[in-house]
Amino acid sequence: MNHLDPNNILLITDIPGYTPQISRLMSMMNYARYSTLRAVEGLTTEQLDYKLDETSNSIGALLLHFAAVEVAYQLETFEHRDLNEEEMKIWGAALDLGEQGCTIKGNPLEYYVNILNEVRTKTYEVFKTKTDEWLYEEYPFWQERPANHYFMWYHVFEDEINHRGQIRWMKKRLPM
Amino acid sequence: MNHLDPNNILLITDIPGYTPQISRLMSMMNYARYSTLRAVEGLTTEQLDYKLDETSNSIGALLLHFAAVEVAYQLETFEHRDLNEEEMKIWGAALDLGEQGCTIKGNPLEYYVNILNEVRTKTYEVFKTKTDEWLYEEYPFWQERPANHYFMWYHVFEDEINHRGQIRWMKKRLPM
Repeated sequence: MNHLDPNNILLITDIPGYTPQISRLMSMMNYARYSTLRAVEGLTTEQLDYKLDETSNSIGALLLHFAAVEVAYQLETFEHRDLNEEEMKIWGAALDLGEQGCTIKGNPLEYYVNILNEVRTKTYEVFKTKTDEWLYEEYPFWQERPANHYFMWYHVFEDEINHRGQIRWMKKRLPM
Repeated sequence: MNHLDPNNILLITDIPGYTPQISRLMSMMNYARYSTLRAVEGLTTEQLDYKLDETSNSIGALLLHFAAVEVAYQLETFEHRDLNEEEMKIWGAALDLGEQGCTIKGNPLEYYVNILNEVRTKTYEVFKTKTDEWLYEEYPFWQERPANHYFMWYHVFEDEINHRGQIRWMKKRLPM
């Protein structure tokens, strides 16, 4: 991900090829992802699979969750639709986590990072075609409250940061 | 906090009395705070004091941490200085957490919420006097990398969201 240049990562600013507000949103998404990747750096498959207790998600499942949430919001904001049956077969477990999320295991870190990169690349390709006005389009969302596309993408990185806090918590408590 | 109107909370948009970019930043800070307050709603003093294990912070300590971080960034971005000795006496434990954070206990939820509101009110009063250009002022920050004020305030709510993920984790596992 060439967007994650450590020298520019502390700037919320313009990004060539994108409109001003989309650039700012991307700057925040980039720092969130940069922090996620730093938090999981060097983890083994065993560590990525580890569950701290019965109801805990594994770190690997949370990484795949970030990609799944991003896919869901691509569909929501780019196509105004939910995941279809076929897409749910691919992303459902990572999206819903819990018991279903337990099937996500046995993968090295690279597996998750590649999927995260693929999904992010798709997002940023579409962002190239979007304007700031698009970011402010609003319609009824959670509990029929008005939400705009900017908020929906804010929520994508906000959810990642929330779970990254949990990843840091779990990492500190890994027995291996 | 009249900024946390549930009907407008899913919009990243203009806020009367503030410049466009400061409004967007505030919209994101507002949603982060709204989610924090929802996560701790109804918790008792005993629950706020509870530590899940030896190295864990309590939920109460994390709430005070949010206020302390915000104070630190008020001083950083409004006055370009660190906390002085007197300020460290007030905020040091909440800022550094860990062993020091253990002294934060015995308070009802209202205690933390009042402090959070006081600090946030101060931030928003000063934001009224700031321009978008101020948000883009940059200077060497962590590891001497360039950072702008926008990033620094992004980090304030980003840190809150990160720990709110941990608050949610802990809340699910409270024994009482």
